[in-house]
Amino acid sequence: MTVADTSADGAPTRRRRMGPQERRRQLLDLGQELVAERSLENVTIEAVAERAGVSRGLIFHYFESKQDFHLALVREQAEVMLARTMPPADVADPLEVLSRAMDAYIDYVEQNHAHYIGVLRGTLSVDPAMRAVADSARIAMTERILGHAPDLGIAVTPAVELTVRGWTAYVEDVMIRWVTDRQLSREAIHALLVASLPALAAAAATVDT
Amino acid sequence: MTVADTSADGAPTRRRRMGPQERRRQLLDLGQELVAERSLENVTIEAVAERAGVSRGLIFHYFESKQDFHLALVREQAEVMLARTMPPADVADPLEVLSRAMDAYIDYVEQNHAHYIGVLRGTLSVDPAMRAVADSARIAMTERILGHAPDLGIAVTPAVELTVRGWTAYVEDVMIRWVTDRQLSREAIHALLVASLPALAAAAATVDT
Repeated sequence: MTVADTSADGAPTRRRRMGPQERRRQLLDLGQELVAERSLENVTIEAVAERAGVSRGLIFHYFESKQDFHLALVREQAEVMLARTMPPADVADPLEVLSRAMDAYIDYVEQNHAHYIGVLRGTLSVDPAMRAVADSARIAMTERILGHAPDLGIAVTPAVELTVRGWTAYVEDVMIRWVTDRQLSREAIHALLVASLPALAAAAATVDT
Repeated sequence: MTVADTSADGAPTRRRRMGPQERRRQLLDLGQELVAERSLENVTIEAVAERAGVSRGLIFHYFESKQDFHLALVREQAEVMLARTMPPADVADPLEVLSRAMDAYIDYVEQNHAHYIGVLRGTLSVDPAMRAVADSARIAMTERILGHAPDLGIAVTPAVELTVRGWTAYVEDVMIRWVTDRQLSREAIHALLVASLPALAAAAATVDT
């Protein structure tokens, strides 16, 4: 539904005037919709303008360039992913925390496949700003996990830190393949992700600097 | 040194005529040189033409487009990497095979940082041909490793296969960070890579489909 809908007699309905905040929000929402339909790289300013029923110029009032718009979409998705996978605060057992977080992560990836790929493409992007968004999502996940390491009797050495970051890359690769080929059940992929982190961390804990 | 060098009196030296095979080889060699100097995305047809002392048109006789040239460069690098890390045929112990292969891998990454990043960018590339090159390098590494799984008493289940592929992503992430920040010694990074694979595979072997 766009704000440029026409009424039954074909005449444009009166366009409701949006405040800048509301308009920016609308453009981002429509952008996220388009990512889901056609993947990030095919989301053009023209397509967003058409769907919003506004001019290209108006969009450039809110976002400097297509790249800037894509960056805002990816940044927002990274935030959504991190919020959805926030570990429960009322659970003490770190392995149970991991299990719940991975459950939420799998849900997120299943429901937001195109957005997820969009964020991941940023990890190796040529554009430093895009790379920074993807990197900071990995850093945030890594820090959450490292916060639990002491509860498991694991000292946060450089090897452990490098490994937990590397594990986020492992998870991304496994998830991309899993949502595509579904060779494992949901229970099995969950068990795999949950088992892989302690296994890697224990191996890393034996390595000196 | 280019074939368009001028002689002492400033007149162009006679250009030696290259056969098509030799010319293609020269263009790829100069392309790889440029990747090392400025990274793949900044390697233009103009720069290669200048360095080779030939016209842009001549290069398009060998490569359809810049994209096609980049693809050839990345494909060649993936082959070099796989050849360099070929496991020794005369070693029976699979952990020793892994140790030697990781040694060679670390050497390769240290000596070919820009090329390595170029190949990795392909893993999430929008271009399916580029993605296929990077994927096939991961698949080749995965298959080499899975070939040794039975010697270690590990059955190649879908979970184990997914994990070994995911491990290649882990290794890539760890190596990219390591060549940049060098927080670990070479011995430590080697130990980390060698310890991580059996740890992950053992965890995956406990997961049902």
